[in-house]
Amino acid sequence: MTPLKNDRFIRALLRQPVDMTPVWMMRQAGRYLPEYRATRARAGNFMTLCQTPELACEVTLQPLARYALDAAILFSDILTVPDAMGLGLYFSEGEGPQFEKVVRCAADVEALGVPDPQQELRYVMDAVSLIRRELDGRVPLIGFSGSPFTLATYMVEGGSTKTFQHIKGLLFDQPEVAHQLLDVLAKSVTQYLNAQIAAGAQAVMIFDTWGGVLSTRDYLAFSLHYMQQIVDGLTREVDGQRVPVILFTKTGALWLEQMAATGCDALGLDWMLPIGVARQRVGQQVALQGNMDPCVLYASPERIKEEVSTVLASYGAGSGHVFNLGHGIHPQIDPDNVQVFIDSVHEYSRPYHSAEALSNAGVLA
Amino acid sequence: MTPLKNDRFIRALLRQPVDMTPVWMMRQAGRYLPEYRATRARAGNFMTLCQTPELACEVTLQPLARYALDAAILFSDILTVPDAMGLGLYFSEGEGPQFEKVVRCAADVEALGVPDPQQELRYVMDAVSLIRRELDGRVPLIGFSGSPFTLATYMVEGGSTKTFQHIKGLLFDQPEVAHQLLDVLAKSVTQYLNAQIAAGAQAVMIFDTWGGVLSTRDYLAFSLHYMQQIVDGLTREVDGQRVPVILFTKTGALWLEQMAATGCDALGLDWMLPIGVARQRVGQQVALQGNMDPCVLYASPERIKEEVSTVLASYGAGSGHVFNLGHGIHPQIDPDNVQVFIDSVHEYSRPYHSAEALSNAGVLA
Repeated sequence: MTPLKNDRFIRALLRQPVDMTPVWMMRQAGRYLPEYRATRARAGNFMTLCQTPELACEVTLQPLARYALDAAILFSDILTVPDAMGLGLYFSEGEGPQFEKVVRCAADVEALGVPDPQQELRYVMDAVSLIRRELDGRVPLIGFSGSPFTLATYMVEGGSTKTFQHIKGLLFDQPEVAHQLLDVLAKSVTQYLNAQIAAGAQAVMIFDTWGGVLSTRDYLAFSLHYMQQIVDGLTREVDGQRVPVILFTKTGALWLEQMAATGCDALGLDWMLPIGVARQRVGQQVALQGNMDPCVLYASPERIKEEVSTVLASYGAGSGHVFNLGHGIHPQIDPDNVQVFIDSVHEYSRPYHSAEALSNAGVLA
Repeated sequence: MTPLKNDRFIRALLRQPVDMTPVWMMRQAGRYLPEYRATRARAGNFMTLCQTPELACEVTLQPLARYALDAAILFSDILTVPDAMGLGLYFSEGEGPQFEKVVRCAADVEALGVPDPQQELRYVMDAVSLIRRELDGRVPLIGFSGSPFTLATYMVEGGSTKTFQHIKGLLFDQPEVAHQLLDVLAKSVTQYLNAQIAAGAQAVMIFDTWGGVLSTRDYLAFSLHYMQQIVDGLTREVDGQRVPVILFTKTGALWLEQMAATGCDALGLDWMLPIGVARQRVGQQVALQGNMDPCVLYASPERIKEEVSTVLASYGAGSGHVFNLGHGIHPQIDPDNVQVFIDSVHEYSRPYHSAEALSNAGVLA
């Protein structure tokens, strides 16, 4: 494989010196880009886009053609795993994701097997290999998965939910069934991410979109516990190069210490906590990725620059920061504002990595 | 007015000794009750229910006829205030609340006046007086309002939102316009709550449903700052009796210290933080109200009892705890499970208020 021409993202995740703060955006290959909407229209439906490696590769690369992003992220959906388990994922126009089958009882869970990433999820591995080849070492490729709890939420509810009625009903009333479901999901995600790493993913991220709806006790038992199992089972090095793992629990600011203690390399942060406070809490253990409110991109270029400066100043001098939004970019955002955002991260971050800044902060260069 | 026969709720809010932990539920007058659905059907639509004092009184009292609740809460909607400001609130079948007019710019804000609670909101005051009379001192009556930021969210978005695009666009790009809007809302809410207190409300609660979608900096500047203004302007004593104020920010666990410092009497808690941890953080300053996950009520009676015990044990011995759910009760809940919930709070909490428990915990009886 071609060596990386831009390894700023990997270096920041490993808290090694960088010249400027790397940046990428959750959902950077997405609906805010007209070229994405064109490919999506050509594909006909969302699942075809995910399941056709050439199309997945095309949309993955689209934002890189416009912006000086420091990483690419595989274009896919977190629900490919439950789909591969036989639940029948589909998207109706204007609706969220839905499943033909739901999982509600012990028998439903018993029927689930760990999908073979080289069989049922072959299309994802093919997309990873193709994207890695097409990237040709420009920037690293991030693989990803949903967390077991987040996947379980969709599988038990049968789609999106506001009340979490069925998944929480299961946790509270049949915790042993919930644990069995989460266990098969942790095994499935571990194999899925290891296959992505084998196919060429140079870092992986676990998205725990819904862990934040739980109490502290239930988060630790039903969400973090299974992310820990995955972290423990992942391939952490390929050809002498560390493959960093990023954990992201939306609205998880209460639990950063416990997340950092899993042995992951970095935490994704939403925008609730100033990143400097998060750094004080866990920055000796892990890198931090985030954390500008995605709604800032609705504002003026001047205001976007101001907020970028604020986040950079909050983190302060030294490596260990990957700039990102605190959640996915919204479809309504003007692509020109994204340009301002990406460029100002690079421009304004240089001083925080200068020999002088590092020396003043007592950080080793 | 008749003196209170059951003042456990008020005493707990003031951290005065009680025989058992008082309990009520957010949305206790609501769709999970068949008698509520019958009155609602008779009213024809939701706004008629809110605007007809006899009907609002009827549904307010319904849960008290079934359960040994320690407080009644006025049946109304947080959006009566923007409606009284002329925005035209309406509810379409199966949709959330919507406004005929939205507020998006300086001119829209300039056009808003502070509504006179005795005129445009007369129906609320009439409902409060009537409910207070009908309660005849059985339990205290809670008045309430939305927080300025929460009301502004609906007014700027024109209804419910998932993205908070317009309200955050306003905060980020035109903060001075946002502050002007929040200021007129803080004045309106202060007058509205003071009128409810004058009409008979014996405690008031401010619901900040959406403050938790903000960063720490923006929460303090755009949400808590205006709740502070309201706390400062409220009537705190009527006929020698303290009128306690409860602040509740959903997903606000990061900010309990700052909320407690407003001078309110109590904080409402969602279920994210164990209530014992919240007590350690702010329990010397304020009482705490919460915090069982409302989804526990989907579970079995045994499990509901277990969770009630866990919350009580987490809070520990002594007064200063009003038991509640961490958010409103869901419409799908079985009313029989509510019975189990309410009764077990009373039953299991007695030992935490015994002379022995208080003495062991070093708490003054």
